[in-house]
Amino acid sequence: MYKLLKRENRAKRGELHTVHGVIQTPVFMNVGTAAAIKGAVSTQDLEQIKTQVALSNTYHLHVRPGDRVVYQMGGLHKFMSWDKPILTDSGGFQVFSLAGLRKIKEEGVYFQSHVDGRKIFMGPEESMQIQSNLASTIAMAFDECPPSKADHSYVKASVERTTRWLERCKNEMDRLNLQEGTINRDQMLFGINQGAVYPEIRIEHAKRITEFDLPGYAVGGLAVGESHEEMYHILEEVVPWLPVDKPTYLMGVGTPANILEGVERGVDFFDCVYPTRNGRHGHLYTNHGKLNLFNAQFETDERPVESGCGCPACKRYSRGYIRHLLKAKEMLGMRLCVLHNLYFYNTMMEEIREALDQGDFAGYKARKLLSMNTPI
Amino acid sequence: MYKLLKRENRAKRGELHTVHGVIQTPVFMNVGTAAAIKGAVSTQDLEQIKTQVALSNTYHLHVRPGDRVVYQMGGLHKFMSWDKPILTDSGGFQVFSLAGLRKIKEEGVYFQSHVDGRKIFMGPEESMQIQSNLASTIAMAFDECPPSKADHSYVKASVERTTRWLERCKNEMDRLNLQEGTINRDQMLFGINQGAVYPEIRIEHAKRITEFDLPGYAVGGLAVGESHEEMYHILEEVVPWLPVDKPTYLMGVGTPANILEGVERGVDFFDCVYPTRNGRHGHLYTNHGKLNLFNAQFETDERPVESGCGCPACKRYSRGYIRHLLKAKEMLGMRLCVLHNLYFYNTMMEEIREALDQGDFAGYKARKLLSMNTPI
Repeated sequence: MYKLLKRENRAKRGELHTVHGVIQTPVFMNVGTAAAIKGAVSTQDLEQIKTQVALSNTYHLHVRPGDRVVYQMGGLHKFMSWDKPILTDSGGFQVFSLAGLRKIKEEGVYFQSHVDGRKIFMGPEESMQIQSNLASTIAMAFDECPPSKADHSYVKASVERTTRWLERCKNEMDRLNLQEGTINRDQMLFGINQGAVYPEIRIEHAKRITEFDLPGYAVGGLAVGESHEEMYHILEEVVPWLPVDKPTYLMGVGTPANILEGVERGVDFFDCVYPTRNGRHGHLYTNHGKLNLFNAQFETDERPVESGCGCPACKRYSRGYIRHLLKAKEMLGMRLCVLHNLYFYNTMMEEIREALDQGDFAGYKARKLLSMNTPI
Repeated sequence: MYKLLKRENRAKRGELHTVHGVIQTPVFMNVGTAAAIKGAVSTQDLEQIKTQVALSNTYHLHVRPGDRVVYQMGGLHKFMSWDKPILTDSGGFQVFSLAGLRKIKEEGVYFQSHVDGRKIFMGPEESMQIQSNLASTIAMAFDECPPSKADHSYVKASVERTTRWLERCKNEMDRLNLQEGTINRDQMLFGINQGAVYPEIRIEHAKRITEFDLPGYAVGGLAVGESHEEMYHILEEVVPWLPVDKPTYLMGVGTPANILEGVERGVDFFDCVYPTRNGRHGHLYTNHGKLNLFNAQFETDERPVESGCGCPACKRYSRGYIRHLLKAKEMLGMRLCVLHNLYFYNTMMEEIREALDQGDFAGYKARKLLSMNTPI
């Protein structure tokens, strides 16, 4: 289903064919945790900002409205009114970072809902069942994401269990995809590589999960506390052990610079809350660095956030107006900033693909980084 | 500038020609207090929901971002990116209802900003200067809005001062419209009738303000505590004393039923926060009564809020999805509800105009009221 179209050193230009259409890679997935992009952004808006893939969170949707509700409503695509691809995470990361009191056992994780304190159990089978109910295009394997500072022996044991969980995920997903009543019987399962900052554990794990011959593989457990340099180093070590003819997904990353470095190291799927979260705080990405629209200097600035930008905010509204909205706590201010930031990310991915097509990714990357570090 | 196109008993069908285009009446103005409709609704959205006139609040914009800032940005139209008509209120109502500690004198009102406690003075001249800086299409006269329960002698004295203030408003507006540097030199001034629930004070005041030969007149000080019946009675008494060949504006009103009753009594401009405020709370207007989307019955309801509705929410999203968004506190939920409610109001006004054009307003009104009181 994945076609590798071109390479420039390790960087990959590809496309992933899915039942919900073709994803051109490298791609940045736009995060809509609870089946909506935060900041009052609708799926109608997404069509204006070059979004290819929406990402939703299994844990959040399991807790509210409940994956059975989404299933009854015909799955996430129908529920959100979005017919392009959707990726759901496994719920594992949120269980480890958000939920209260939890216990990890061989069978899975016992924890409490952050919404109502209700006791929940989630293991590989439950995660697959929930994601099958959500009927996303791509489901992620249920894994443990150990802290980046966890010691070697803990990480080794954890990763071995994650491998056993992957086998259970695959078996359950195969079963669900054959089952009558399943909404998306072509749901893809991506495996996840773990191993914290220990290259030998990462590499050993990459070899093991590759044997499952899944349609894609993610590198998880990065951008959780280690330095950027450590992250780049891990990518250099582990990505060569993941299949080049399958998509490679770097989970939860990152800044525009992180993405450019990731692409260079062979990654072609990314996701991150930065553009939405920063947008809600009035921090805007431009090709000449970030702007903080709360700064007084923008009070009567009639220019758009970035001149020449084709996003719905820049085509129509000034920095001064958006600043006023943010100061007055008008929700429209946040919405315009989120639209701009997502458009900036999605446009950068488009530029990356064009540069790869033309065999000039290295040049593009250098120019983009220089420009972003050079305020006007 | 106002053309009375047709009458059905006292009901009027007209059009007001302005420098920002023609307003078809009866019309419901969409409230955007701080130069934005609450609920993350953009002016691009307004173009999809039949909005003819946006209303902004002088007091709020004077306090933040400051009318000088809006002036420097080229006036409200350019600031908000909205080229159709805008009406600004005078600031008076907010000074009396929102601001802290205040003192009313012949020259105007001394009060404290609700944002930062700063002492502010606003009189008729200041209100006109601020509205001239905002450069709205229609400015409202600076008046006192006495409480509906105020006694006769207080109301009489207050209304006499409001008349003296109106003369000062007109003189100042005439001066500003001739002044170099004024953004909208065709700014219209509407007078405001006051008099609480005392018909003879209302009528006497109507006669006095009509002498100023202004391009429009409002009935103010209603919907502030009196019963609907008292309000309808006052309209029956006073509207006949306002010129039929000028627009009549009932300020701050109201429910769909209030509007139908107002039209019947000769009103052709309305504004109210109900559709936006109710929308933000998940209360939705339909032709079969209001829905509270928080109700559990809508959890898996795949129908739009109202079938056949052409609003951006109903064309694409289900009750179940919007309910989920509201429960999950996703801003998109509020936005979709506000869009639906404004579209409902704007569409009702369109239906009222069509009914008047066809000489069937009485029939339309009866059918609409019956339908809204008949839940499916």
